[in-house]
Amino acid sequence: MVIDINCDMGESYGAGMIGNDAKLMPLVSSANIACGFHGGDPGTLHQTIRLAQQYNVAIGAHPSYPDLAGFGRREMQLNPQEIYDNVLYQLGALEAFTRAGGGKLHHVKPHGALYNRAAKDPEQAEAILHAVYYFDKTLQVYGPAGSELHIAALKIGLGFCREAFADRSYQPDGSLTPRSQPGALIKDVVLAVQQVVQIVETGTVTTQDGTVIPMQADTICIHGDGLYALEFTNAIRNTLTEKGIAIQAPPVFA
Amino acid sequence: MVIDINCDMGESYGAGMIGNDAKLMPLVSSANIACGFHGGDPGTLHQTIRLAQQYNVAIGAHPSYPDLAGFGRREMQLNPQEIYDNVLYQLGALEAFTRAGGGKLHHVKPHGALYNRAAKDPEQAEAILHAVYYFDKTLQVYGPAGSELHIAALKIGLGFCREAFADRSYQPDGSLTPRSQPGALIKDVVLAVQQVVQIVETGTVTTQDGTVIPMQADTICIHGDGLYALEFTNAIRNTLTEKGIAIQAPPVFA
Amino acid sequence: MVIDINCDMGESYGAGMIGNDAKLMPLVSSANIACGFHGGDPGTLHQTIRLAQQYNVAIGAHPSYPDLAGFGRREMQLNPQEIYDNVLYQLGALEAFTRAGGGKLHHVKPHGALYNRAAKDPEQAEAILHAVYYFDKTLQVYGPAGSELHIAALKIGLGFCREAFADRSYQPDGSLTPRSQPGALIKDVVLAVQQVVQIVETGTVTTQDGTVIPMQADTICIHGDGLYALEFTNAIRNTLTEKGIAIQAPPVFA
Amino acid sequence: MVIDINCDMGESYGAGMIGNDAKLMPLVSSANIACGFHGGDPGTLHQTIRLAQQYNVAIGAHPSYPDLAGFGRREMQLNPQEIYDNVLYQLGALEAFTRAGGGKLHHVKPHGALYNRAAKDPEQAEAILHAVYYFDKTLQVYGPAGSELHIAALKIGLGFCREAFADRSYQPDGSLTPRSQPGALIKDVVLAVQQVVQIVETGTVTTQDGTVIPMQADTICIHGDGLYALEFTNAIRNTLTEKGIAIQAPPVFA
Repeated sequence: MVIDINCDMGESYGAGMIGNDAKLMPLVSSANIACGFHGGDPGTLHQTIRLAQQYNVAIGAHPSYPDLAGFGRREMQLNPQEIYDNVLYQLGALEAFTRAGGGKLHHVKPHGALYNRAAKDPEQAEAILHAVYYFDKTLQVYGPAGSELHIAALKIGLGFCREAFADRSYQPDGSLTPRSQPGALIKDVVLAVQQVVQIVETGTVTTQDGTVIPMQADTICIHGDGLYALEFTNAIRNTLTEKGIAIQAPPVFA
Repeated sequence: MVIDINCDMGESYGAGMIGNDAKLMPLVSSANIACGFHGGDPGTLHQTIRLAQQYNVAIGAHPSYPDLAGFGRREMQLNPQEIYDNVLYQLGALEAFTRAGGGKLHHVKPHGALYNRAAKDPEQAEAILHAVYYFDKTLQVYGPAGSELHIAALKIGLGFCREAFADRSYQPDGSLTPRSQPGALIKDVVLAVQQVVQIVETGTVTTQDGTVIPMQADTICIHGDGLYALEFTNAIRNTLTEKGIAIQAPPVFA
Repeated sequence: MVIDINCDMGESYGAGMIGNDAKLMPLVSSANIACGFHGGDPGTLHQTIRLAQQYNVAIGAHPSYPDLAGFGRREMQLNPQEIYDNVLYQLGALEAFTRAGGGKLHHVKPHGALYNRAAKDPEQAEAILHAVYYFDKTLQVYGPAGSELHIAALKIGLGFCREAFADRSYQPDGSLTPRSQPGALIKDVVLAVQQVVQIVETGTVTTQDGTVIPMQADTICIHGDGLYALEFTNAIRNTLTEKGIAIQAPPVFA
Repeated sequence: MVIDINCDMGESYGAGMIGNDAKLMPLVSSANIACGFHGGDPGTLHQTIRLAQQYNVAIGAHPSYPDLAGFGRREMQLNPQEIYDNVLYQLGALEAFTRAGGGKLHHVKPHGALYNRAAKDPEQAEAILHAVYYFDKTLQVYGPAGSELHIAALKIGLGFCREAFADRSYQPDGSLTPRSQPGALIKDVVLAVQQVVQIVETGTVTTQDGTVIPMQADTICIHGDGLYALEFTNAIRNTLTEKGIAIQAPPVFA
């Protein structure tokens, strides 16, 4: 058995430090690296990609709406052409550092409000993935299983990795419990590890009301900016390793 | 006896957190608040000014070169007109929040590369202070004693507060030991406190080679982003208080 | 009889020139000046305000969503607190130049997507006007009559100037013909002048289907960036003057 | 005989239009396209590259200091690592659109203050060209003959195209007459055409004081933003064509 662990990285900008990249990088198999539009100045891109390459972590682009002040968390009404152009710009910028470092881009995962919008809006999902397709059709796309982003990837012909969350609880319909509701965030390490193991071993998740539903996942997202990010990741990593589950990025087909 | 303690604040941008404003604000008498050009998105400005007003801390503008990715630490060849326009823009933006919160701007301290440049370049120093003068001639200017910024303030007719540093060592000519040299930073709390007390009580400082030179100061700068910022500030504050030295911002004359 | 003619100005950024400010400024009575978020670098703000003061044109802030690449024309999901903070920041920045030039801010007109959103969203309308109110409660607000922005101004207690358009056709319900429909833009100078005169003299407008509806207006918006902006404005100005209608900005009550 | 004609393109940003790309593109053989840091939002990059590809114009990256408000014309004290990172980021962003459009990047020409600095500062010149080298070692570099940029290209092993100007006068030492001096700009079409022909046919230029000096050039820069840009370019193009001189971009060696 094998699973990917992905984490958002390289989101610092100027003197503002975000996350804990140096300590988390050795623990994950995939890094979604900010491309400058919600975080990630050019120096941060460079250092983060070097770090990823040092630990053989698969490098993914983490494109965003152009909204540095809002950290890409505010929805913007870009039309499909604007989405395409903004994503393509970011893919290129990130790939330059990957290539200069002797490596190759592995995947793309939209960030923040763009991720949420792409999950439910087929037009924006396709605009993002057209940019990916014309840029490099071997790239994997990370996103929620069954989302509009997933459907667009199938339609356009891009590899797709279904993403589940270690520290978020689920609803019976397979959606994440909204952050505004109690229990949305799993703060207990033991429960988070248990959820990951269940997803990986059985392809199911136990929702907030106790229902067990299917949850196929190719990659588990862990959050790098939480107080306990390091503790959670270490615990998940150790448990998976003990159980003989390999932690590695999905292969690409060139 | 009385001294001001000033600290740079409000430099976070988007999701990038800088400094430790919430814990430091109650300990200082003056806050130099970023205005959006090197840090400080509008939300951060608002929160920081509210925090300062809550603790009756004197609010200063901390204008910078327009360089978010470089945190205002890279010199830019702006001509005097551009300096004037960029500083004036930032003064206004910050003042809006101060005024909306029912308060008044107290001082201006240039940030980073602009501070360093203004200390030695009379043309840029005057351009900055012309903006201050035409904006509000009751504002105090914070900077190094005897610098070109000081001279420009005297010439233009603005109040000037001579700034000394708690955690930087000095050279016999009164300049700071460059950060590239050993001993530039005072990492020992006891020594930092001792330096502050000597400056306040005797108007002198003992330089790195042991020489005692004059060092009149109206305000002591403490750094908010260091590992020990809180410890240093508490120690300085406690010692000054024990010695009966009042910590308060310089008065303005309206 | 008296009417105000307003025009968006100062939207150039870096080397990109927008509009024809130098030639239009002598022809209008109100200028809505960009504040840096959709256009208007600090140097442009300065020059535009100086130009307005030279011709005794009433200076208005023209705040926008923070979207330079999209010229503020793309809707952004800012929450009311973010709207308040972004507008307040821009009001302050613009006012600094007005004050340094010896003048006073006169009005506020939201720009682009923020204008459209504020017309129909009471929450965003109120957030904008709370910023105006806490900044300077003597400022006039420019916007569509009967819009949510109008209602918010009445509720909060700010002066409101009802705006009509010289070169846009109207629907029987009083709304503008959408730009996507034929005849949305009035390209014939004679017809545009006629529409302005009718609005000013009779308080009515003839809609696209021939219906005559009430259209009270305190200010007429002319577009500065069209090919015929100068010709239109001159024609409107000359005709109004011939008819003895004074062109001047609405008074403020301090 | 053959010569390249290059022009800066794609510098518009948001609603600010710069230059006259649509009309000039069919007349040149090389386009230096802004990459977003001094101009060139993602949509402009896309349209400009599509236009260049439509007319088989060689596409070059035109990277800049990160200074949108200053149009990249203000020198910034970036260290070599920062120069490398900023240039690499821009190369990637531009190349993404070129690649998605089915083409290939051809050359790199630094913009504005970065061009001027690189001409005389070996450290910055090398930092720029290290980025080019690690990104794509087949790219040509455009710059002044004998400059530090030229020396760095030779040292690092990148192809270099010596650039001369159609509408700038030269000094006896081969430098451009500074813009602050009279006669710096050649405003007479006939004289500009004559200078280009002399450079191409004889490898010499007649300086402002009448001296004839060597001036080998592989590419002639024309300015796209001047009042007479179109007239100049047409005249140069027609005269060269009449004289049987081919206008085409230098070949690359892959």
